[in-house]
Amino acid sequence: MTERFELMKKTLSQMLEERKYATLRDILETMYPADIAAVFADLPAQRLPVIFRLLPKELAAETFAEMESDLQELLIQGFSDNELKEVLQELYVDDAAALAEEMPANVVRRILQQADPEMRRSINQILRYPENSAGSMMTTEYVSLKPDMTVGESILRIRRQGIDKETIYTCYVTRDRTLLGLVTVKDLLLAEDDDVSVSEIMSTNPIFVTTHTDQEEVGRMFTKYNLLALPVVDREQRMVGIVTFDDAMDVIEEETTEDMELMGGMLPSEKTYLKSSTWELFRHRIPWLMLLMLSATFTGLIITSFEEALAAQVALTAFIPMLMGTGGNSGSQSSVTVIRALSLNELRFSDLPRVLWKEMRTSVLCGVVLAIFCFGKIWLVDRLLLGNDQVTLMVDAVVCLALLVTVIAAKLVGAALPMAAKAAKLDPAVMASPFITTVVDALSLLVYFLFAKLLLKV
Amino acid sequence: MTERFELMKKTLSQMLEERKYATLRDILETMYPADIAAVFADLPAQRLPVIFRLLPKELAAETFAEMESDLQELLIQGFSDNELKEVLQELYVDDAAALAEEMPANVVRRILQQADPEMRRSINQILRYPENSAGSMMTTEYVSLKPDMTVGESILRIRRQGIDKETIYTCYVTRDRTLLGLVTVKDLLLAEDDDVSVSEIMSTNPIFVTTHTDQEEVGRMFTKYNLLALPVVDREQRMVGIVTFDDAMDVIEEETTEDMELMGGMLPSEKTYLKSSTWELFRHRIPWLMLLMLSATFTGLIITSFEEALAAQVALTAFIPMLMGTGGNSGSQSSVTVIRALSLNELRFSDLPRVLWKEMRTSVLCGVVLAIFCFGKIWLVDRLLLGNDQVTLMVDAVVCLALLVTVIAAKLVGAALPMAAKAAKLDPAVMASPFITTVVDALSLLVYFLFAKLLLKV
Repeated sequence: MTERFELMKKTLSQMLEERKYATLRDILETMYPADIAAVFADLPAQRLPVIFRLLPKELAAETFAEMESDLQELLIQGFSDNELKEVLQELYVDDAAALAEEMPANVVRRILQQADPEMRRSINQILRYPENSAGSMMTTEYVSLKPDMTVGESILRIRRQGIDKETIYTCYVTRDRTLLGLVTVKDLLLAEDDDVSVSEIMSTNPIFVTTHTDQEEVGRMFTKYNLLALPVVDREQRMVGIVTFDDAMDVIEEETTEDMELMGGMLPSEKTYLKSSTWELFRHRIPWLMLLMLSATFTGLIITSFEEALAAQVALTAFIPMLMGTGGNSGSQSSVTVIRALSLNELRFSDLPRVLWKEMRTSVLCGVVLAIFCFGKIWLVDRLLLGNDQVTLMVDAVVCLALLVTVIAAKLVGAALPMAAKAAKLDPAVMASPFITTVVDALSLLVYFLFAKLLLKV
Repeated sequence: MTERFELMKKTLSQMLEERKYATLRDILETMYPADIAAVFADLPAQRLPVIFRLLPKELAAETFAEMESDLQELLIQGFSDNELKEVLQELYVDDAAALAEEMPANVVRRILQQADPEMRRSINQILRYPENSAGSMMTTEYVSLKPDMTVGESILRIRRQGIDKETIYTCYVTRDRTLLGLVTVKDLLLAEDDDVSVSEIMSTNPIFVTTHTDQEEVGRMFTKYNLLALPVVDREQRMVGIVTFDDAMDVIEEETTEDMELMGGMLPSEKTYLKSSTWELFRHRIPWLMLLMLSATFTGLIITSFEEALAAQVALTAFIPMLMGTGGNSGSQSSVTVIRALSLNELRFSDLPRVLWKEMRTSVLCGVVLAIFCFGKIWLVDRLLLGNDQVTLMVDAVVCLALLVTVIAAKLVGAALPMAAKAAKLDPAVMASPFITTVVDALSLLVYFLFAKLLLKV
């Protein structure tokens, strides 16, 4: 698949070089917008306007909608007013609004100038809603029906209006712009009689969101109810638009990437990896690194304050990385599981006792098994095989007891912190591995040295 | 939202207690299958058959399809043959096949007995394909058209056949079962003339997968091309079924969860967190913990072999956690970013040089900034504020030089390992944080002690 794509890209570049525009056009016409956009992304920027102008109008707009915003800006800068108008005419309103959201002010001005009055009004309306809200991702183009229309009239209306609508498969039944219900094209086509009225076959009690619903919630509703489109109503419960499933899928992808970035200890970024500059990567990565480096001062302090114990029992130092590592891994296992379950809505804060009880039992099981293995391994490898006489039975016991307690504490902390974050209306993913590791590192050292004091009397 | 849901659950339970079946039924009828399934999941198991039987036939089947497999099994065990037959009749073939895939052998036998002959054939066909392949997630029910049919005839055919099809919005044009193209209901409804033939308006060159395409690839194609359905062909290029977008969304969710679990150092699990038993959680978590604990033997060995250096410069020990922690965090930032980009197909193995160059620049920037801050912090806090005389300028320099090298090495390793895994056809997510942390831990200690030997002559 990817090899064929590479080959395709090379062939197209060469044709462009050799100015074989007619053949180029013929090939592009057989391709999908997403693939054309991917090819364009790798072409030298100055060739882009030439090849873009080869595309037939509709395909050009669809490809444009699939492109990254930096290339969109580049193209618009080169467009004549007429070309811009033509592309805008073919774009769906939500794509046009998304475009306007990403462009610098002077480009937005040009876009609004060239858009037809209805689209201009819609773009302005969508841009007014907060970023990441249902309002900002909706389209104002949808098919609306009246409750007293018949099935036949409804089909006729779809045939007349459908051309401009992103989806026609779900139609919304409204009275005075209030949402009463919905009818799918399947319902209409399969209705036994063309004279039945829409109100008789519509499903009442439709699922909807308000303009201010967070996009993450919107994405979740699409997955939960397998929706193709979701109506958006304003504060007065009047219908103002719909979110379509392609945008919902994009949001789900974005939100997942954001969760992963937070889990990896980075500020979320909206750009793809290869598009991000060194400076942007640096800016997204340095804050957590800095914070976690500074917070490691505590672990340093703990070690310093037990310096004498370590000097008396040098063998203890060798097990510090293993203890901290296993603690960190145990904690991140629990936190990742809980964070994912929270973001899929499988867990609520009220489940906290159940979660802690589950983690308690799992961590005891993990801890005991690890401690027993560790005990044997230390004795066999460190003492017998490597002949380290400082590793006494007592040292071994201290290490393994500390390991057991660390694993239990790590799993409880790892599960509890994301849930606490959720309750505090923070993103649970912020509480992921790097943060928990730091807490667990300090805990594990404390436990370790306390056991050492107690059992080895150092 | 969730509070309203809790309230609803309580009300329904109470009505069930009080045997107010008629009211209960009226309320259930207004609810969505996914919500009913969620309510059922929390009811006592022995009440489930009673309340399930209240649902009207179609809603019952839809709810059944949304339920977790353990509850499905429980219900089937209680069904009479007739009840089972009724539910199966209403299920779509892909849901029935998914059900059969999860049930124990004796239940599968009953399912196949009660299914009508056509469904039985389809289930058997779907079950033959490898798990996680397009074939195993497809449905064999779709609308197929012939190229010489007219638009009018096609619409008539949809109206006659549509009732049993999961989606009617994309119709597939075939000749001798070979896929020629596709036509959407939108195309048909918006066609200017009912007498135009399907072959004139169909899009040729449709996107398809084969029965053996991996489900992850299937999910990616839905997102990339914004598909509602995707045709599946066999080795002879004959069309055998379609994958619908609801199943694709489920796969995307599953695959993402799997990536996150791997990143968190766990074996992937198919069950939700609350449904997993302690024993299952243990089994999925212990292998990595054990492996990583054992591999920490290396870090222990490194420390042991530099024991004398540490004894001579006790202050060095205090900075080990900070060094290892910062290294681990730097590495996991890069690995998480690269793993996500790989799973979104934004990166290919051939991008490796670009990735390494990008990480090199970013890591030098991060490393230099961290090292400078760390140098100042150690001098100000550890030396001046806490008055630790052992922290000399030279010790400070050793720590910060080691930090710089560690950050650079960690970012390069963190980015390279997942790409190498991809090239070796392994899941890149396996190479995530815990694994990289172990490699980086060992590296950072080695670098640290080498600098100490070199600069402090210990």
